[in-house]
Amino acid sequence: MSATRIDQSHTHPALNGLTDEINALRETGANFWQRGWSVGTSSNYSLVVSREPLELLITASGKDKGRLSPGDFVRVGASGKPVAEGQPKSSAETLLHVVAAQQPGVGAVLHTHSVWSTLLSDFFFPQGGFEIAGYEMLKGLEGITTHQTATWVEIFENTQNIPELAEQVRERLLDPADPLEYGYLIRRHGLYTWGRDLAEARRHVEIFEFLFECVARRMVLTGELKANGVL
Amino acid sequence: MSATRIDQSHTHPALNGLTDEINALRETGANFWQRGWSVGTSSNYSLVVSREPLELLITASGKDKGRLSPGDFVRVGASGKPVAEGQPKSSAETLLHVVAAQQPGVGAVLHTHSVWSTLLSDFFFPQGGFEIAGYEMLKGLEGITTHQTATWVEIFENTQNIPELAEQVRERLLDPADPLEYGYLIRRHGLYTWGRDLAEARRHVEIFEFLFECVARRMVLTGELKANGVL
Amino acid sequence: MSATRIDQSHTHPALNGLTDEINALRETGANFWQRGWSVGTSSNYSLVVSREPLELLITASGKDKGRLSPGDFVRVGASGKPVAEGQPKSSAETLLHVVAAQQPGVGAVLHTHSVWSTLLSDFFFPQGGFEIAGYEMLKGLEGITTHQTATWVEIFENTQNIPELAEQVRERLLDPADPLEYGYLIRRHGLYTWGRDLAEARRHVEIFEFLFECVARRMVLTGELKANGVL
Amino acid sequence: MSATRIDQSHTHPALNGLTDEINALRETGANFWQRGWSVGTSSNYSLVVSREPLELLITASGKDKGRLSPGDFVRVGASGKPVAEGQPKSSAETLLHVVAAQQPGVGAVLHTHSVWSTLLSDFFFPQGGFEIAGYEMLKGLEGITTHQTATWVEIFENTQNIPELAEQVRERLLDPADPLEYGYLIRRHGLYTWGRDLAEARRHVEIFEFLFECVARRMVLTGELKANGVL
Repeated sequence: MSATRIDQSHTHPALNGLTDEINALRETGANFWQRGWSVGTSSNYSLVVSREPLELLITASGKDKGRLSPGDFVRVGASGKPVAEGQPKSSAETLLHVVAAQQPGVGAVLHTHSVWSTLLSDFFFPQGGFEIAGYEMLKGLEGITTHQTATWVEIFENTQNIPELAEQVRERLLDPADPLEYGYLIRRHGLYTWGRDLAEARRHVEIFEFLFECVARRMVLTGELKANGVL
Repeated sequence: MSATRIDQSHTHPALNGLTDEINALRETGANFWQRGWSVGTSSNYSLVVSREPLELLITASGKDKGRLSPGDFVRVGASGKPVAEGQPKSSAETLLHVVAAQQPGVGAVLHTHSVWSTLLSDFFFPQGGFEIAGYEMLKGLEGITTHQTATWVEIFENTQNIPELAEQVRERLLDPADPLEYGYLIRRHGLYTWGRDLAEARRHVEIFEFLFECVARRMVLTGELKANGVL
Repeated sequence: MSATRIDQSHTHPALNGLTDEINALRETGANFWQRGWSVGTSSNYSLVVSREPLELLITASGKDKGRLSPGDFVRVGASGKPVAEGQPKSSAETLLHVVAAQQPGVGAVLHTHSVWSTLLSDFFFPQGGFEIAGYEMLKGLEGITTHQTATWVEIFENTQNIPELAEQVRERLLDPADPLEYGYLIRRHGLYTWGRDLAEARRHVEIFEFLFECVARRMVLTGELKANGVL
Repeated sequence: MSATRIDQSHTHPALNGLTDEINALRETGANFWQRGWSVGTSSNYSLVVSREPLELLITASGKDKGRLSPGDFVRVGASGKPVAEGQPKSSAETLLHVVAAQQPGVGAVLHTHSVWSTLLSDFFFPQGGFEIAGYEMLKGLEGITTHQTATWVEIFENTQNIPELAEQVRERLLDPADPLEYGYLIRRHGLYTWGRDLAEARRHVEIFEFLFECVARRMVLTGELKANGVL
């Protein structure tokens, strides 16, 4: 694949000094595309490149994630707008990255579209989400140290009104009683997850995708049309 | 794989100046073969290399798509016949490429054979096709800007009489009331789709294959033996 | 993988002049292993290197097919025995290769172990085999020119008595009324197929594996526990 | 992937002379990660590097198995503790490697987390395990020479108390009446298997994963919710 082809001529000055970050996201895209989690130009990825003020390096809109070139990125601010003119259009979902990145300690946000996340986000939408419990792989979510736990995967209705959805997500992230953790699904759309850095966010994608596949295949295997919830 | 092995000695003069186009189709073949969409020498791919008169660069008949060599291509005209003698035999389905390429704004036509497209084209044949609705990934089809849409995937009976099938497809593409859009299936055979250029046509293949897998796995998961049609 | 590592020091003189053939089988192994058709040192592959007398180049017993080295091959005669001393042990199933290679026009024999072939060979064993009908991909079997055809996939009981099984297979290949064609399955074991040359035999493996997946997934999708047989 | 990137600067002196062993485990990790058996930093792998006293080279805790660097390894003793200070933290499950490695003739221990092993280890837990019988691929388990055999895959309840689990496993390995052989599952967690050397242990992983997929897909295909046990 051409993901290793360097075409610095198209990199905007706002991206100066971000070569390593850009290449890390390009490699992430090539891998996720190969796994089938980012096909058809779907998905978008971001890294926090400034905390005060908050600025993100994010994939431009509509690019092939299997062969991202260095020019396929934008630097945006907390409003979701580019920090300088002349950059490509950022993803339509930029505000969902901003909301996730505004949490303390978040350095990377990854959004993917897999078949299993699409199916489960539809199937469990009527009950608002589903619980994943009792799997050793839950320990791959940062801070979980035992399989004797459960995580709730919340599902938001899909919409093209991203500011509205971003506001809903923000409220749930900040919910004092029961805040969203680790990630969430958008119905018939895909996964948002994040981490301290790109490695942690990638790990969270891999963990969620593994667990989604377990939940879905278990339903097919046993005929029990419910997420597993044994503790 | 040997897809990167250049053997210009076998390239016919009619292909002079088309090295980039040929290599792009070779890379497409290597990728689709790896994904399982073009195994066993199945599939064929074309690019519009002249509009007036219409001429296509198309894969020759019966070649291994995972390891296409530069000599495995033919330049054909609107009749589906080679524009010059001494070229390899073009695909038996060349006229289906011509019909798709005759639409305004089409620059590339891709035909693939996947397991899911084979199964769905058989299962939904009695009702003439199936609707895919409500998925975010529909936005990967050019011009669709919301998931709140539906696309109808029409299914044609398979035949070895390609001129007859090409005529049926042409009529449906030109149907003033309800024209075919984006692509179609041939029963127990595979997918035809196209785009402005190769990148768009590849995106359409990836989008359709993703959606076919969603439709089929959803049927297995829920036991509902129908395509999903929620809006 | 190390399939490209050349270690000529371990190649027996009986293999002199067969470097291209050896490398072609090594590449075949690397690919089939990657696809999951030859894992765990399973499978074996052969090429006809002499017709009069019949001699085969065949993979040695118990080698990792994902990383075959040039020394992992044996040259055997029609008895299934090595043509010269000092070569590694040939596959226990060498006689099945010989029987297939004794057919006129056969230049390569491939044996693989996939999950779908294992399952179908078990499920349909009580009825002696199953018919695959009506798929376009059947045209990938040499000489088939229409989807309006059917091929019977015969299933033999598994055994460790290879000479006995080889004799059963030979009788069915020579059956004047209804000879075996293209390949066969061994119950809970795997596929044997062949071709004029390695490319054709590989194509037959890819075609059979595609069709096996269609048959099995169709059963899961529709709940009809029978091979499809529509013409 | 960066698995080929050498960063000797992070290798502890306790690992001197183990470059080949380290690289072999790095390649194993890259492959298992690609297959989906070691995603999300799950899994751990070890090699016996000294028999008297027993010392293992083992993956450090929490590393990405798809891109292990030379510094991601620890040398531990029979207590499961590092043999020298200043090394990274070894896997929390080190004692399970030690127990397996204490068996005579064991040179490598591999632990993996696949979807199928996770599902089967849960489904068959109530009956303590399941039998795999009658498959040719069983011959890939060292010492088995016929498909007319059966192997019992025992399932242990998952726990974070590794010393306790290690003791349970040890007892079953040493059980004079019916000792554990080849490997075992931990419920909703994964597989432990081993071999004389890394090649044999890898073969056992590939064989078990193939057979787990057969058992699970057969259940889905036939609707029989039991492991197959035909002899």
